[in-house]
Amino acid sequence: MIEQRIKASIRDIHDFPKPGIIFKDITPILKDAQLCEGILDAFVEQLKGTEIDVVAGVESRGFLFGLSLACRLGVPFVPVRKAGKLPYAIKQKVYELEYGQATIELHTDAFEPGARVLIHDDLLATGGTVTAASELIAEMGGTVVGFSFVVGLGFLNGKEKIEPISENIVVLAGY
Amino acid sequence: MIEQRIKASIRDIHDFPKPGIIFKDITPILKDAQLCEGILDAFVEQLKGTEIDVVAGVESRGFLFGLSLACRLGVPFVPVRKAGKLPYAIKQKVYELEYGQATIELHTDAFEPGARVLIHDDLLATGGTVTAASELIAEMGGTVVGFSFVVGLGFLNGKEKIEPISENIVVLAGY
Repeated sequence: MIEQRIKASIRDIHDFPKPGIIFKDITPILKDAQLCEGILDAFVEQLKGTEIDVVAGVESRGFLFGLSLACRLGVPFVPVRKAGKLPYAIKQKVYELEYGQATIELHTDAFEPGARVLIHDDLLATGGTVTAASELIAEMGGTVVGFSFVVGLGFLNGKEKIEPISENIVVLAGY
Repeated sequence: MIEQRIKASIRDIHDFPKPGIIFKDITPILKDAQLCEGILDAFVEQLKGTEIDVVAGVESRGFLFGLSLACRLGVPFVPVRKAGKLPYAIKQKVYELEYGQATIELHTDAFEPGARVLIHDDLLATGGTVTAASELIAEMGGTVVGFSFVVGLGFLNGKEKIEPISENIVVLAGY
């Protein structure tokens, strides 16, 4: 039901950000306040039974539903940001991209050791960034108890990549 | 009341992002789900009487409360993004920074001509980005009916800069 509503809103953009890629544009979803509420309802429903102390949202589209989801769950939200954006003391993780490297950061006080962390992003592609986030969270003493994504691109095998971290993977609309 | 709660949570970071600047770190606010709900309540309360068709949130911290606010108001959310991030047809605006230039973009289908647009960001500093966003929105046929910020830095005179666009400026915590 929610899956059909999400898929009916998503817009395919050919050759973005580079030739050969079909980009799933979620901006039409954001224009539908009822659908956004439905997405949050679905996340809360599908995460029932998961004990979550913190929601970690990945910059920048993971900020969109991430904060609302944390509010719905009544738990803290912490931003996972690109290098140089977080102002306080940070821990960082460098990870490999198809071409080159990227760096993500978390504030050192993002959560207490032992915290159960849900990682949220808008879309699961290859899973590279959320894997790096998971490793960073583990190094900081947190436990990744699950992942939530609005959209998942199955053909990129992100699920297979992150399953060893946690099998609790919520994808509302899968391709 | 909400102002005191916000100010009690904000953390001053000296010399970020460069020497001499005291950065207002809002991440402790995001860790307090009740305070986040209070911020949304306060925005809705202070925007009563403003007819809003669309909330435009400025990348990336404007995505945090921007989407939730749009949902609360029951209106579409549209992202104002840096150059090259929006996948569909865009209109852009180049504007001057202290050193150099920056570019912001909106999707051409972000709103219909005549739409009443609220611009949201986490923090009002010099007002450069939201002024550029306002100009872009006006060029696209929209009307800026107000601004909402969690924090405002009065000493940077952003309010004076944006008042000619709309006097309806909600700042929950002013410095």
